[in-house]
Amino acid sequence: MKKFLTGPFTVLLTPFSGDKVDMATYEKQILSLNESDISGYVTNGSTGEFVSLSLEEQMQLTEAVAKLKAKDKKMVVSACTACLADTVKLCCHAGEVGADAVLVCPPYYFKYSAKEREEYFISVADNSPVPVILYNIPFFTQEIELPVIYRLFEHPNIMGIKDSSANMKRLAHMVQVTEGTEKSILTGTDDILLPALVGGCVGSFTAFAAIYPDEVCAIYKAVEAGDYKRAREVQFSLMPMLREADSETFPKGYKKLMSKVSGSNFSDKEIGN
Amino acid sequence: MKKFLTGPFTVLLTPFSGDKVDMATYEKQILSLNESDISGYVTNGSTGEFVSLSLEEQMQLTEAVAKLKAKDKKMVVSACTACLADTVKLCCHAGEVGADAVLVCPPYYFKYSAKEREEYFISVADNSPVPVILYNIPFFTQEIELPVIYRLFEHPNIMGIKDSSANMKRLAHMVQVTEGTEKSILTGTDDILLPALVGGCVGSFTAFAAIYPDEVCAIYKAVEAGDYKRAREVQFSLMPMLREADSETFPKGYKKLMSKVSGSNFSDKEIGN
Amino acid sequence: MKKFLTGPFTVLLTPFSGDKVDMATYEKQILSLNESDISGYVTNGSTGEFVSLSLEEQMQLTEAVAKLKAKDKKMVVSACTACLADTVKLCCHAGEVGADAVLVCPPYYFKYSAKEREEYFISVADNSPVPVILYNIPFFTQEIELPVIYRLFEHPNIMGIKDSSANMKRLAHMVQVTEGTEKSILTGTDDILLPALVGGCVGSFTAFAAIYPDEVCAIYKAVEAGDYKRAREVQFSLMPMLREADSETFPKGYKKLMSKVSGSNFSDKEIGN
Amino acid sequence: MKKFLTGPFTVLLTPFSGDKVDMATYEKQILSLNESDISGYVTNGSTGEFVSLSLEEQMQLTEAVAKLKAKDKKMVVSACTACLADTVKLCCHAGEVGADAVLVCPPYYFKYSAKEREEYFISVADNSPVPVILYNIPFFTQEIELPVIYRLFEHPNIMGIKDSSANMKRLAHMVQVTEGTEKSILTGTDDILLPALVGGCVGSFTAFAAIYPDEVCAIYKAVEAGDYKRAREVQFSLMPMLREADSETFPKGYKKLMSKVSGSNFSDKEIGN
Repeated sequence: MKKFLTGPFTVLLTPFSGDKVDMATYEKQILSLNESDISGYVTNGSTGEFVSLSLEEQMQLTEAVAKLKAKDKKMVVSACTACLADTVKLCCHAGEVGADAVLVCPPYYFKYSAKEREEYFISVADNSPVPVILYNIPFFTQEIELPVIYRLFEHPNIMGIKDSSANMKRLAHMVQVTEGTEKSILTGTDDILLPALVGGCVGSFTAFAAIYPDEVCAIYKAVEAGDYKRAREVQFSLMPMLREADSETFPKGYKKLMSKVSGSNFSDKEIGN
Repeated sequence: MKKFLTGPFTVLLTPFSGDKVDMATYEKQILSLNESDISGYVTNGSTGEFVSLSLEEQMQLTEAVAKLKAKDKKMVVSACTACLADTVKLCCHAGEVGADAVLVCPPYYFKYSAKEREEYFISVADNSPVPVILYNIPFFTQEIELPVIYRLFEHPNIMGIKDSSANMKRLAHMVQVTEGTEKSILTGTDDILLPALVGGCVGSFTAFAAIYPDEVCAIYKAVEAGDYKRAREVQFSLMPMLREADSETFPKGYKKLMSKVSGSNFSDKEIGN
Repeated sequence: MKKFLTGPFTVLLTPFSGDKVDMATYEKQILSLNESDISGYVTNGSTGEFVSLSLEEQMQLTEAVAKLKAKDKKMVVSACTACLADTVKLCCHAGEVGADAVLVCPPYYFKYSAKEREEYFISVADNSPVPVILYNIPFFTQEIELPVIYRLFEHPNIMGIKDSSANMKRLAHMVQVTEGTEKSILTGTDDILLPALVGGCVGSFTAFAAIYPDEVCAIYKAVEAGDYKRAREVQFSLMPMLREADSETFPKGYKKLMSKVSGSNFSDKEIGN
Repeated sequence: MKKFLTGPFTVLLTPFSGDKVDMATYEKQILSLNESDISGYVTNGSTGEFVSLSLEEQMQLTEAVAKLKAKDKKMVVSACTACLADTVKLCCHAGEVGADAVLVCPPYYFKYSAKEREEYFISVADNSPVPVILYNIPFFTQEIELPVIYRLFEHPNIMGIKDSSANMKRLAHMVQVTEGTEKSILTGTDDILLPALVGGCVGSFTAFAAIYPDEVCAIYKAVEAGDYKRAREVQFSLMPMLREADSETFPKGYKKLMSKVSGSNFSDKEIGN
C-alpha cells in the first residue's frame, strides 16, 4: 500500500526584519527550493518559529507557499498552538489554501495527561478538513506516548507522524507497527536520515532540506539505489554543519547557516518600534 | 526599606464564549473583586490562559482592568510570550495603561541556556517602561536558576519575583538574600500562603484570591495579627478546594470552582465557527 | 492524637578512611550529639552515603548508634536499597537492634510505575518488624505521588514520611490530610525548618542537626514558644552556611562544613589498596 | 584502523533463587551461549541487575564467565557502582580474571555536574587495569554529554561507548567523530540493531543476544552481506517480543521471555529467610 507522504520535505525558515516577517526573503527561499528535488514544503514548523508568529502571520506565510510553490511540490502546514480552537482555525485555513496535510504538535506550556493528549488529537482530526500528521517533539513540549500514537493511527484522518525525538527505538516500533498501511513514519532529524530511511522511515521534515537540499536529496537517492557507501559519505559530510547549527539555541544556528549558504539575511525577530 | 509590592494579588481568570473572550463576565469579575481587600490584579497570568490569547486580546483584557479597577488596587500585567519582541510590546502597552508592574516568565517552547535566560530578562528590564517582576513557573517553562535571580535583582528595573514552584527552599533563600531591600518575594501558590508568609514572603499572586478573596485576605490578616492558629484554620479550610481544583488539568479546575462560587460561567475556549 | 515521631532528628554523616568507614570519628559524632537536645538519630541516610556502603557496613554503623546513643534519643535506620529483598533485610536488622523506625525511599536506578512503587512500600511495611517512615527524595530517585502516599498512610505499619522535596505544597497537603492522626509529616530540608514547622510539620531529619544541633534545636524551641522573630533570626543565620554546603555535590559540602565545625576529619570514600 | 570491540555481545541475565544468585542456571546460560555466534559476554549489566548484587556477588558471577566461556568469546565486566572506590575495585577484579574491558556508567543516585562526571571517568580510566567502555543509560542515571564523551575518547584507556539511549542522533555524531579510530560505538538497544549498524555502530551489548542469539547474529550477518531486506525481516520479527519484554518494569519482562525461551527459571530476587 502506498504511503501517504514520502521523501524529503523542507521545513521553511522564517526571516524577520525587525519584528515583522521579511516576506521578500521568505519568497526567495521558496522559489529557490522549487528548483530542488525536495518533495514539498512545511510552513511554520518549529524551525519556522511559529511560537513567535501570530495566527495571521502564519496564514500569510502559508499563503505565500500556496501561491509560489512548484506544482509538483506538496505543502504541509504546521497547526501548532497551545489550544484546540487555535489549532483547528489553522487547519481550516490550511484546507482553504489547498494544503496536503497539517502538522500538529501536542499543546505546549500547560501540561496534559496522556488521555487528554489523545482526545486533543482526535478533536483536531475530527475537525480538520485536511489529513493530520502528528508531531512529536519532546524537547519542546510533552511527548506523545507510543500506545496513544498506535490508537490515533486508527483515525482515518491521521495519516502519519513526524517524530523529532531522534529516538530510533520509537521510530523502529512505529515503522514495524504501520507496515503495510498508508501511514507515514517521518523523521524530523537531519542527523539520522540514513539510519532512519534504512530503518523504514519513508520521509523527513527537516531544516537542512532548506539549507542543503541537494545533499539531503542525494542521501535519499543513494539509499534508493542501494548505494549505502555513498549515502553514508553524504550523511557524514553534513555532520560538522549540524554540530555547528546546534551549537546555538534552536533555531538560531540553522538561520545563521542558511544566511551564509543562501546569501540572504535570515534575521531573528527583534524588538520593533 | 519598604517592599515594592505586598499583599494578596488576584490572578484574574479568563472566561470565554466560543473562541472569543467573554468580556462581560470578565468585567463582572473585576467589579466584584473591587469590593474585597485584595491588593491588586494580575491580568493574563497562567491562570488567565495567556497562551491561548493573541497579543491584542491580552491588551484588551488589560485595558478593562485599567478602566474598571478600584483606585486603591494595583495592576500587574503579565507579559509572558515566547520571544523578546512580543514581551517588550506587552510591557510597553502596560506602561501606556498605567500598570504598576509587568510579570515576565522565561520564554517557553524553545529551550534556552541559563546565560540566555539572564540576557533575556535584562533586555526586557532595559526596555520595559514599568518595573519587572520575574515569574518562575518550572512546571510550564524552564526554571530561573537562583544565581541568575540574585544577579537580576541588581537591575534597578527588576523589583521582585513571583515564584510558583512551591519550592520553599528557593523562597527561603530569596527572602534571606533580599532582606532589607525593596525587592518583593511573592508566592504563586495558594496552598502555602501561611508558611510562605511566615517564611518571609511579602505577598502572593494567586487564583484563589479571585475565587475566595475573603479567605485569602483572612490568612494575611491573621498572620499580621500574630494569630497563627486562626491563619492555619483558614489555610486548612482551603486545602480540600485546592485539591479539587488541581484534580483537572490546569486551569480548568480553577475555572469550574470559580463558576460555582461566582454564579457566572467561566467557560473554556472552544472551537469557533 | 500524639504524633509518632516529633522534633529534630540528626542524619548522621559517614566519615571514611580510604575506602573503609572511619568508625572512631563516627562514634565521636554520636557521643557529641548525645549532649544536644536533638530527638534522635538517623543512620545511613542520603547524607550518610548509603549508596556507597555495603549492607554489612550499614549494619555496623547502625549497631554503633544502638550501642552509643543516649537513652532518651530515638533511632531511625535507613533501609534504602535498590530492591525489596535488601530493604527488608535492613528492616529486620533494624528490628534486632531496637530501632524505633526505618526510613525507606523508592528503589533507585530502575524506574517503576506508581502502582509498583505502592506495592513496594506495602511489601516493605508488611515485612518490617519496625514502623516504616516513607522517604521522598525526588532529586535522587523517583517521587512518591501524593495519592499513593495517602493510601499508604492507611497501612498500620507506615507511620509517616520524611519529604526532602522542599515542596511546601506537598507538605501542606500531607499535613492537612493527616491532621488528628498519629502519622508524622517530617521535612528533610534544613533551609525550611521555620516555615515547615509553622505549616504543620512535626519534625525533621536533617544534616544540619548533626553540624549545628544547637541552632536547629533553637528554631524548634522558638517556634514552640511562639517567638517567630527569634526563630527567623536563627533560621536566617543558617542560610549562608546552607548555600556553602550546597555549592558542592551532595553531600561533600556538608562533610566539609562538619569537618570544620567538629574538628574531626569527615573524609570522602577513596580508592582503597 | 581496527575497532576495539565489534559484533553482538550478550548482556547476561541474573537468575535468583530466593535472595541468592542461582549459579546453576547462570552457568547453563553461559554454556548454551558458547554454542552461538555472539562475540562475547557482558556480566552484571543493567539487565544483570547489578544494583541488587553485592560487589562480592558480582565478582562471583564474573568468575563464572571467566571460567566457562568459550575461548573465542570476549568478556566485558560491568563496573557500575555509585562511587569511584567501588568501581575501581570491580575494575581491578576484572583485570585479575582476564576481562577484555570494563563497562562503566556514571555514578547513580547522587547527581553530579558534567565536569565531575568527566573527572570520574578519567579517574576510573587511570586506575583500571583493563580498557574502559563508557556506558550511557540516561533512563536510569545521568546522561554523559557528547562534548564530555569526545574529550574522554582522547584517553588511551577509554576505548568506546555502549549507548543505551536509543538516540540515533547521539550515535550518529559519535560514529562520525570517531571514524578512522579504534574507538567502538556500540548500541545497547536491540530494537535498533539494523539502523544502528547501517549508521556506523560496530557492535552491541544487549539482552536479546542472550534470549535470541541466532536472530541477533543473523541481523549482523545479513548487514555484512549487504542483504538489507533479510536484515529488516529478522529485525522486524523481533519487534513484537521486544514490546512484550518492555511491557513490564525492566528487566522483569526480559527475564520472563528468557525463562520461556530457555526452559530455565530466571526468577527475580525475592525476600530471603
